[in-house]
Amino acid sequence: MAQLCVNTKSASRHVKGAAHGFTPMAPGCEAVIMSSALVEALRAGLPADAVLTDPDVTSSYAHDMASFCDAGAPAVVVLPRTVEQVQHVMRTATALRVPVVPQGARTGLSGGANASDGCVVVSLVKMDRILEISPVDRIAVVEPGVVNATLSRAVAEHGLAYPPDPSSWEMCTIGGNIGTASGGLCCVKYGVTAEYVLGLDVVLADGRLLRTGRRTAKGVAGYDLTRLFVGSEGSLGIVVRAVLALKPRPPRQLVLAAEFASAAAACDAVCAVMAKGHLPSLLELMDRTTIRAVNSLAHMGLPETTEALLLAAFDTPDPAADLAAVGALCEAAGATQVVPAEDAAESELLLQARRLSLTALEAVKGTTMIDDVCVPRSRLGDLLDGVERIAEKYALTIGVCAHAGDGNTHPTVCFDAADPDESRRARESFDEIMALGLDLGGTITGEHGVGVLKKEWLARELGPVGVEMQRAVKAAFDPHHLLNPGKLF
Amino acid sequence: MAQLCVNTKSASRHVKGAAHGFTPMAPGCEAVIMSSALVEALRAGLPADAVLTDPDVTSSYAHDMASFCDAGAPAVVVLPRTVEQVQHVMRTATALRVPVVPQGARTGLSGGANASDGCVVVSLVKMDRILEISPVDRIAVVEPGVVNATLSRAVAEHGLAYPPDPSSWEMCTIGGNIGTASGGLCCVKYGVTAEYVLGLDVVLADGRLLRTGRRTAKGVAGYDLTRLFVGSEGSLGIVVRAVLALKPRPPRQLVLAAEFASAAAACDAVCAVMAKGHLPSLLELMDRTTIRAVNSLAHMGLPETTEALLLAAFDTPDPAADLAAVGALCEAAGATQVVPAEDAAESELLLQARRLSLTALEAVKGTTMIDDVCVPRSRLGDLLDGVERIAEKYALTIGVCAHAGDGNTHPTVCFDAADPDESRRARESFDEIMALGLDLGGTITGEHGVGVLKKEWLARELGPVGVEMQRAVKAAFDPHHLLNPGKLF
Repeated sequence: MAQLCVNTKSASRHVKGAAHGFTPMAPGCEAVIMSSALVEALRAGLPADAVLTDPDVTSSYAHDMASFCDAGAPAVVVLPRTVEQVQHVMRTATALRVPVVPQGARTGLSGGANASDGCVVVSLVKMDRILEISPVDRIAVVEPGVVNATLSRAVAEHGLAYPPDPSSWEMCTIGGNIGTASGGLCCVKYGVTAEYVLGLDVVLADGRLLRTGRRTAKGVAGYDLTRLFVGSEGSLGIVVRAVLALKPRPPRQLVLAAEFASAAAACDAVCAVMAKGHLPSLLELMDRTTIRAVNSLAHMGLPETTEALLLAAFDTPDPAADLAAVGALCEAAGATQVVPAEDAAESELLLQARRLSLTALEAVKGTTMIDDVCVPRSRLGDLLDGVERIAEKYALTIGVCAHAGDGNTHPTVCFDAADPDESRRARESFDEIMALGLDLGGTITGEHGVGVLKKEWLARELGPVGVEMQRAVKAAFDPHHLLNPGKLF
Repeated sequence: MAQLCVNTKSASRHVKGAAHGFTPMAPGCEAVIMSSALVEALRAGLPADAVLTDPDVTSSYAHDMASFCDAGAPAVVVLPRTVEQVQHVMRTATALRVPVVPQGARTGLSGGANASDGCVVVSLVKMDRILEISPVDRIAVVEPGVVNATLSRAVAEHGLAYPPDPSSWEMCTIGGNIGTASGGLCCVKYGVTAEYVLGLDVVLADGRLLRTGRRTAKGVAGYDLTRLFVGSEGSLGIVVRAVLALKPRPPRQLVLAAEFASAAAACDAVCAVMAKGHLPSLLELMDRTTIRAVNSLAHMGLPETTEALLLAAFDTPDPAADLAAVGALCEAAGATQVVPAEDAAESELLLQARRLSLTALEAVKGTTMIDDVCVPRSRLGDLLDGVERIAEKYALTIGVCAHAGDGNTHPTVCFDAADPDESRRARESFDEIMALGLDLGGTITGEHGVGVLKKEWLARELGPVGVEMQRAVKAAFDPHHLLNPGKLF
């Protein structure tokens, strides 16, 4: 490999010596040689503008939106436009044993797309074509870099919907959504990304192309490898094409807001609504901290004296009737006020408040750690209770907004990152919330993924046999551990 | 191991000799020794009545309901009642390297539960407890031997539904449903078994207990091993407990029957209904052969002059309005008659006809091969067309009933098994139908699984990279290939 070092001034001097066996290799030279060989090999199968090596540029690809997650410096960032180019990248990476970190729009919240030192970042954002939309088959075929909102708007023109709607839907890509099995507000009725992925084309670690799944409504031929890739955070292969299931576009939803004097009462209402067999298209909760943060950011005039605000929506043929029934259940659970929106505009305003929650909480102290604990919805009250105790114990502001209908909460620790003690307390409270979630029969992540942020916790949730079998699957797909190393496990 | 042979008269004579090194082992003795050692080891951890060795009894566990699938003679059948007993069986099987075939009610249609020679059949039918039903969390926790209909009735008492409804629902078990990822009539609206399995307890090949998934509505912690087991036909582990998602019990459905002068027109109607965004709870098709067979069996008075009968149902708040809209689409597609059922009783009668289809087709010639090809619904007409051509080419009766809304068809070859030439033609036509399905962008199996019947075809569908990765997954879970050998691959 020494002859490849001529591209790199600082290293070539030493290598010449090394070739004659006289001069010892200077520290760091090996990495430089490797990097140079790598870039040259990558360039052999990629257009010039698809290979970025300027550190000022590549460093901007170092991390996603998570706090407290280490990120390394990529050796190179590539922006392939075709399946063949991705295959070339993976063949090169395997030949040279260089780690690869696949990325979408880097809106993730767990560090799952963070670079590791010396890796190849494969950004899929340039593979952004919608290849097909079929109203009869109710499918879309897309490349991974398609932005969620772009797809949603495109299928809406055909009277169809692609339901998964993470908060970042205007930025995040379908490939990223598949990597983290993203959720959103709609999941209580429409489920998560996993339920919409029918088939995938995946470039494996060694560059082979694997086609999984199908474009039919049903299919059980062999093991469900499609679902194995969904939520695998780029650690098993690189998704280069997806067949997605679509739904008929539902009627516009109508929203109701219910105020409660305690979080417990709001949780009782959630349980009553679900136990009675209602199918809301959205059932969201904001606690007092979140309400105040939103008011403070956007002056939305939400009721600051209330302890918890519940938003319920229906996109049924008669949403007003459904909202009336749910309103009655809220009142029975102790709601102090129930206000159904009169029209779509009022509904949108209420949802706007919910969507601003995380941004508003971030403004409280400058930094947040957003947790993603999901518990059986019957334990939602216990979780909120526990989070309040944890906030007191650590003297921290922790706001909770939640996809309450799913039991999926986002306790959000607000802290000043410049204050080391507060940062430490933030980290400890964050861990304590996950421990509480597991104690309540829940999971450490409902929709954000494990990434770097929660990998120690994953082992706690899965137990030793679980971890062993997950590692066995990883080894079957990526024997050299090149794909997104240091994530998940 | 020789000393264990004393249990078996015929073998012990030879073994005594063998122990002294004088008499050569008689052919078959090794198997007898193994079998004896196996039975003794199994009995050490199972109640006496849970270990069956009488060949007259064990032979009745040799196969499921598929035609044309080889089945071997089990060495022993075990009927464990606890997780620990299943673990004991697998530890024993791994220690002695004996193959294991897990079974539910053996209603499968692909030979996936067929015994192999000398195997341990593990019948899960005695593990039949419903452990929990939670209306708030909308889940049930069950053992694998619970019969599908038993669960459906139990959850109905709580206002809930477990939608997957294979035709064998009165007999088949949840464990079997999970093994084959069963579908049914409801899938067009409610999806298949896979979409209802949240978490599993699985006994691995070596006896370790693996817990996968969750009991929460959402969760993305690690790879989705739950989904990997669903549809794995008992080849990766033995499911001993499942957390199932439930739905609110929908209103009773109302059915419409539409007659068509050609199968093509019926398929056009299916495409129109789905493209218009309707969500029928059922959208089924019966061709003329099937209609006549049902009349002949049950004198139901279905219209024999029609070429295709479409049944559509809605369980919406206003099913009559939805049926009227669908009826209009059927007429626009050329329906010769559209008859909405007036009430639940009439609806049930129409469904009865559909449910009798396979039994009725079996009565035509004594034996059937039931195919399970699923195509994109836009290609449904091409498939039916092709099946008609294939029936003519091979001079066979092939009836088609179909979950038309899903593009999932059951072309059913009727033949006289005593006629070798007809049997050969049946087999060839069956294969040609699968080839056609693949050509149309479909899959060889929408809901029945691969088993023995279609394992050669699985490789054609998956391609070499697909097969290689599926085998890699199998090896990760079952390195000694003891679980349901000879199935799938």
